[in-house]
Amino acid sequence: MHLRLASDAHHSAPITQGKSGHDYGGFFREAVSRLHGERRYRVFADIERVAGRFPQANWRRPDGSTREITVWCSNDYLGMGQHPEVVGAMTETARRCGVGAGGTRNIAGNTSPLVDLERELADLHGKEAGLVFTSGYVSNQAGISTIAKLIPNCLILSDAFNHNSMIEGVRHSGCEKRIFRHNDLAHLEELLVEAGDRPKLIVFESVYSMDGDVAPIGKICDLADRYGAMTYLDEVHAVGLYGERGAGIAERDGVMHRIDVIEGTLAKGFGCVGGYITGSAAVLDAVRSFAAGFIFTTALPPAVAAAARASVRYLKRSKVEREAHQRQATQTKAALEAAGLPVLHTETHIVPVMVGDAELCKAAADHLLECHGIYIQPINYPTVPRGTERLRITPSPFHDAAQIERLTAALAKTWDALGIPRTGSAFGVAAE
Amino acid sequence: MHLRLASDAHHSAPITQGKSGHDYGGFFREAVSRLHGERRYRVFADIERVAGRFPQANWRRPDGSTREITVWCSNDYLGMGQHPEVVGAMTETARRCGVGAGGTRNIAGNTSPLVDLERELADLHGKEAGLVFTSGYVSNQAGISTIAKLIPNCLILSDAFNHNSMIEGVRHSGCEKRIFRHNDLAHLEELLVEAGDRPKLIVFESVYSMDGDVAPIGKICDLADRYGAMTYLDEVHAVGLYGERGAGIAERDGVMHRIDVIEGTLAKGFGCVGGYITGSAAVLDAVRSFAAGFIFTTALPPAVAAAARASVRYLKRSKVEREAHQRQATQTKAALEAAGLPVLHTETHIVPVMVGDAELCKAAADHLLECHGIYIQPINYPTVPRGTERLRITPSPFHDAAQIERLTAALAKTWDALGIPRTGSAFGVAAE
Repeated sequence: MHLRLASDAHHSAPITQGKSGHDYGGFFREAVSRLHGERRYRVFADIERVAGRFPQANWRRPDGSTREITVWCSNDYLGMGQHPEVVGAMTETARRCGVGAGGTRNIAGNTSPLVDLERELADLHGKEAGLVFTSGYVSNQAGISTIAKLIPNCLILSDAFNHNSMIEGVRHSGCEKRIFRHNDLAHLEELLVEAGDRPKLIVFESVYSMDGDVAPIGKICDLADRYGAMTYLDEVHAVGLYGERGAGIAERDGVMHRIDVIEGTLAKGFGCVGGYITGSAAVLDAVRSFAAGFIFTTALPPAVAAAARASVRYLKRSKVEREAHQRQATQTKAALEAAGLPVLHTETHIVPVMVGDAELCKAAADHLLECHGIYIQPINYPTVPRGTERLRITPSPFHDAAQIERLTAALAKTWDALGIPRTGSAFGVAAE
Repeated sequence: MHLRLASDAHHSAPITQGKSGHDYGGFFREAVSRLHGERRYRVFADIERVAGRFPQANWRRPDGSTREITVWCSNDYLGMGQHPEVVGAMTETARRCGVGAGGTRNIAGNTSPLVDLERELADLHGKEAGLVFTSGYVSNQAGISTIAKLIPNCLILSDAFNHNSMIEGVRHSGCEKRIFRHNDLAHLEELLVEAGDRPKLIVFESVYSMDGDVAPIGKICDLADRYGAMTYLDEVHAVGLYGERGAGIAERDGVMHRIDVIEGTLAKGFGCVGGYITGSAAVLDAVRSFAAGFIFTTALPPAVAAAARASVRYLKRSKVEREAHQRQATQTKAALEAAGLPVLHTETHIVPVMVGDAELCKAAADHLLECHGIYIQPINYPTVPRGTERLRITPSPFHDAAQIERLTAALAKTWDALGIPRTGSAFGVAAE
């Protein structure tokens, strides 16, 4: 596959070379060639989604020809992006309100569908207020940094496996930080004790997206109570998917009310785009008022807000999708394990199949796409640590038994064709 | 007006108070009360846009009642958000592809409409490649920081009036920076000379949004050539609006090919949402590969990409909107000046009417909305320097002569009712 950047414009070349001896273009080419050397240059597959046929989609090859494929790596976990109520809310609102919001939240962009969506999200998580950002990334980056900055002398305690957006939020705050070992309550307590009486903010996730493991939220809340810390929980890979009304793992575990700020996304379980935080009116009003990444950016389009709200509302009342999701994920894991593939055991819907080598991982993905019409993007460093490269499979309620069977057979053939080890012992994987 | 955050959820209160003696809630309430004290607490008007009736909209009051208003502060400068081709592209693509992209660009979210949009943008600016981000804010923050980081020993030269997103990009890069006085070529040259032979990146805007003035792009390119600097130009308030095909001021001035990286937005002149950069394939491939704010975030929905592409394509071939836009802006300025209102002279479509006091500015906006059904959000610190508070008026092709007349009368009455000085001499404004 070739570079998928636009290249059909035949205009005068930009002037990044040869100025006063600096080869600016060379700096960038060299940086990219380092990625090629480390076998972690990323190629984006060009995919056309087909509403009503998920997880089937059309793959547009570099030569322009297309092929129907099965997507096995989408984060539209429940296929809500194609749900008639969600699509209908987008099209109806676009016709009624137009496309863009027309401005920042402060300047003409605070549209009614967005205000309604924030009420819906506050209700979902049982909080006083909700605040929507252009993405989950921005909600973490702007949310964490603003909250921590407003707490005098704040120490941030951050899980070692937190997502890049949370790390950026922590960094951006300029506050002192301590990293606790992933999901390690003893280490977290040790750091809380060391911190003494100063104000503290614990930031962590519920479902960690690459390993599919789950934080002990209630026990972290116990520690937060004992040592007087505020809590910020990222439920990005859980909202819509877990809990009685789809509010996430904290709802499922009955501890939602104990978390100060719950962050989520509209782009995965809810099938749309955008991110949000929910919490007390005081915290949210402060973030609304001080977060540059919120203030100086155009609001989400009303049609996107309406679609997201339709999805949230639907999943509050319907459990069918959540149940089918868990069932199909369990069946997928069982089938892959029965075929002797190195599946990482997880408690969640995420099914990592370990490869442990960047080049093999990319080759496996290419082989699956080209020979079997199965699309699973390779996950390499820096998304996961080197040596733990994997195929991250995300079954949905729409992946049926026949598709699971085809996936299993294709993976087995790919493992054989490329000579990838079936034992996952190097990763602590109990493969058959 | 009251706090517009969601507050209808009557659930258990979050636990931000009283932990080990720290009143976390108090930190946030105190921060917000400082804003109240400085008269710069922002209240978001709840607006429902009405496709086909722009600039008319419905204002939803805090008590739930609605009133029809005229929006005079939208950044949907040409009203493209309601254009039938743009709305049609969104609804058709949503029906065909669903709502969300389903993943990051790398993992299942690289949808065909987005790939096509990037080609369209590269062509618009005469560059080899385009790269779309979730917002203009992120495109500047991620674009500038990544580009500067990849240039060894880079010195950034940044215009003093650059937008917050550019400042964050500069800060994020960790590179050494020098701020040159706004649009001051002599000062820029002085700093370039001082910098010596090291690699340099000049970052600046074409149209500065709050004063509506324009950078001497060609002359900045002359300096960049002379002293061997790379150039990064933000055309956010110009794309769609200036130039033969709507590529911005650099196109209008015939210097587009001399700029290395042109950044723009899909959310203002194009009436949608999202941001982008265009430039050489080498630079764009490096940003694509290294920018965390690009890599770790869900891609824009296909329906949004399709709407934006329809808007860009339409404005490449149609000049009617650009001409009407300039004509209505000129007529608005003339009418306001004739009424003795302190209009800041600008060369562009932006019409700032100076107030110079945060409280008066807010009061004027409230008076206009409540007594005249005219919505112009007050612009206070930190968006503009203290003492230069203003109403920023943005006429569109759809604001007709009758509306301009009503605006002028309403502003005159408001100025009289609140006793706001008509002379703008304090701001260098030549009011009548």
